[in-house]
Amino acid sequence: MTGPGPVPAIAVHGGAGTVARSSLSAEQEARYHAGLAAAVKAGQIVLMQGGSALDAVTEAVVSLEDCPLFNAGHGAVFTSEGTHELDASIMDGRTLAAGAVGCTRRIRNPVRAARAVMAGGDYVFLVGEGADRFAAEEGLVLVDNAYFATEARREQWRLVRERGGTALDHDAATLFAVLPKTRPDPDNKLGTVGAVALDRDGNLAAATSTGGLTNKHAGRVGDTPIIGAGCYANNRTLAVSATGSGEVFMRLVVGHDISARMEYTGADLAASCSHIIMERLPAYGGRGGVIAVDRSGKIALPFSTEGMYRGYARGNDAPVTAIYR
Amino acid sequence: MTGPGPVPAIAVHGGAGTVARSSLSAEQEARYHAGLAAAVKAGQIVLMQGGSALDAVTEAVVSLEDCPLFNAGHGAVFTSEGTHELDASIMDGRTLAAGAVGCTRRIRNPVRAARAVMAGGDYVFLVGEGADRFAAEEGLVLVDNAYFATEARREQWRLVRERGGTALDHDAATLFAVLPKTRPDPDNKLGTVGAVALDRDGNLAAATSTGGLTNKHAGRVGDTPIIGAGCYANNRTLAVSATGSGEVFMRLVVGHDISARMEYTGADLAASCSHIIMERLPAYGGRGGVIAVDRSGKIALPFSTEGMYRGYARGNDAPVTAIYR
Repeated sequence: MTGPGPVPAIAVHGGAGTVARSSLSAEQEARYHAGLAAAVKAGQIVLMQGGSALDAVTEAVVSLEDCPLFNAGHGAVFTSEGTHELDASIMDGRTLAAGAVGCTRRIRNPVRAARAVMAGGDYVFLVGEGADRFAAEEGLVLVDNAYFATEARREQWRLVRERGGTALDHDAATLFAVLPKTRPDPDNKLGTVGAVALDRDGNLAAATSTGGLTNKHAGRVGDTPIIGAGCYANNRTLAVSATGSGEVFMRLVVGHDISARMEYTGADLAASCSHIIMERLPAYGGRGGVIAVDRSGKIALPFSTEGMYRGYARGNDAPVTAIYR
Repeated sequence: MTGPGPVPAIAVHGGAGTVARSSLSAEQEARYHAGLAAAVKAGQIVLMQGGSALDAVTEAVVSLEDCPLFNAGHGAVFTSEGTHELDASIMDGRTLAAGAVGCTRRIRNPVRAARAVMAGGDYVFLVGEGADRFAAEEGLVLVDNAYFATEARREQWRLVRERGGTALDHDAATLFAVLPKTRPDPDNKLGTVGAVALDRDGNLAAATSTGGLTNKHAGRVGDTPIIGAGCYANNRTLAVSATGSGEVFMRLVVGHDISARMEYTGADLAASCSHIIMERLPAYGGRGGVIAVDRSGKIALPFSTEGMYRGYARGNDAPVTAIYR
């Protein structure tokens, strides 16, 4: 039996972007809420059974990868070549151990591959065919690349190509929102999933997973699998998972910068997250959000876009989910 | 005409690791010093003609990539499959613009591809075949993968395989040092090249390039192309390029952590570099070094290994080069 540690907490996101209220029907909204709640519950069950934050974020992200609504795993967007290339990462706040995969094409659940890379101990980041092969060596489930395709994403890709865009929204829902527009909206580039958790032992963990940008150049890797950018966890500070304009998140090393502000200036979780997302990021043309939890179980979910699919739960409380501001 | 700005400065490295004095002959030493001095001069010429720090670090790293002594470009180590996979990155301290390539197999000078990714503006990081294709689209020089091979690296790879090692030293020179050992030495995993510079306009830039780990798993990407880990530049703080146990550098987000300590605590360049390399890194089993320059032209070259191939110059001064402590 472990002693009376902190109350476990988990938060998840399913991407940030232009999610105007008018763009989603009540039925569509309900599906997103259900998908987010299922992911929160998948992690919550692990935590309430005394499991680790690492296991909780893994199961929560697997749930989001398997849900066709979100841009990760099944439901990932199309590259410019009509294929799917997926990125994922995970980090253990206790040891700063980390694992990530980039540009994978055959791993059904990229976050499980990131976890296997971390567990292997030799590497932190594997990309491309080498990552697919590593997953096979580890006995993970491989699939045909077509497994990731959905009709909604194919239609989205077709529309983006017709407009000559190189990147557009990642969300099946916002697909409808952008239809009337003549130019791709920079707000619509954003789609990723992630989870952060605090377990009973006081350990923090974070995981992030994505299909990237619609119509992206083959080989493009964003902030999602970059330790310190789209994913970071450190028991001294916080666990954080990001979603947004990935290239700016990489240049600003967003996850680690939030942590460094907490560590070096004593700023609290909310202030540090807010400063980076609401002030620093926009100064470089970036938009998006983060989900974050600190070692006391405080949760922050700031975003600068119209909406961010998000959810959280503490202890045995029912999951709370939200889409708009 | 620009006004009397700061005196330009440039520093380069050719990797850190176990470089015992006994392992290098006088002739070998002289070749390393010459290779380092040539790289310093390549950047110095740019700076003294009023060129940018970005151009200076690009030319310095190209010089190191083309030199067969160093583990980058021609002279890169072998993967477990007998091929070469190269990583590189570059960052502009003025704008925080950045570009990187990972796991490339056909780009003669990976740092030029990183620069092209940055210049393109759409992406920060491209990997694998997608990166090779992007370089071709940009008109960069492509080569057969065999271009990167040297006899010294092939012999090193053979020895590593005979011992069943998955990673060993990156340096042609330390090849001789490890011969008497029966187990791969963790100190010998380290090999990378890089450059940092301050130009007359007061702008900072950093670039890093590597062939990675000898006998590495296909697809392995280390800290070299990770913005914030092996490469970081920010006019507010410093430009830094790292070399060492890449996986630990990634977990600690070394480049950005040095910058964050300077920004948030007011620590100076030397103190911040020293803290991360000499205290934080060893606490997680990491070894290596960094080269760094701040906006006043101060240079720091700390390393925790026996040696680090390094060189620097200020203004028109003759380059200073060194190998051992």
